[in-house]
Amino acid sequence: MANPGEFWVEAIGIVAACLTTLSFLPQALRIWRLGSARDVSLTMYLMMFAGQIMWLTYGVVIGSASLIFSNVSALVLVGSVLLLKLRDTAVGVR
Amino acid sequence: MANPGEFWVEAIGIVAACLTTLSFLPQALRIWRLGSARDVSLTMYLMMFAGQIMWLTYGVVIGSASLIFSNVSALVLVGSVLLLKLRDTAVGVR
Repeated sequence: MANPGEFWVEAIGIVAACLTTLSFLPQALRIWRLGSARDVSLTMYLMMFAGQIMWLTYGVVIGSASLIFSNVSALVLVGSVLLLKLRDTAVGVR
Repeated sequence: MANPGEFWVEAIGIVAACLTTLSFLPQALRIWRLGSARDVSLTMYLMMFAGQIMWLTYGVVIGSASLIFSNVSALVLVGSVLLLKLRDTAVGVR
């Protein structure tokens, strides 16, 4: 077993972080371009957001730079979509 | 710093794993129900799949039960959608 924080271990994590974060980018860009999050599920995004907060906590607790980097960037993307979704919901866009 | 594998540390990870995996379930169920992955991006799913393989590797290397559990279940969901997408692409469904 290796320790989080070792260079080669975090290299694996950083590649994983870039792939999973970048895979989410097209959807976020499309929502930003449309300026509306009408076709996304509020429940799904709230669960994703809560899950990423837990993964960020987990990453901090074990000292994993890649988990921290991955979940901070994911929280920014998911958080921005959530804000749009909450705004749409507030102004009654279903 | 705590070590992956400690009970309370993995408890945080398991909650995170359940949230992020469950947040993905509705989309996977909808695609299975439709029997078509027409409106998903092949590139996005390939990147997600590759990212999850890297996170699984990372989880095994540091001995993190929650990362292993989370990414094995995510690989099953994303993998099944990818198979549908590849089948659609093969039979010419754009």
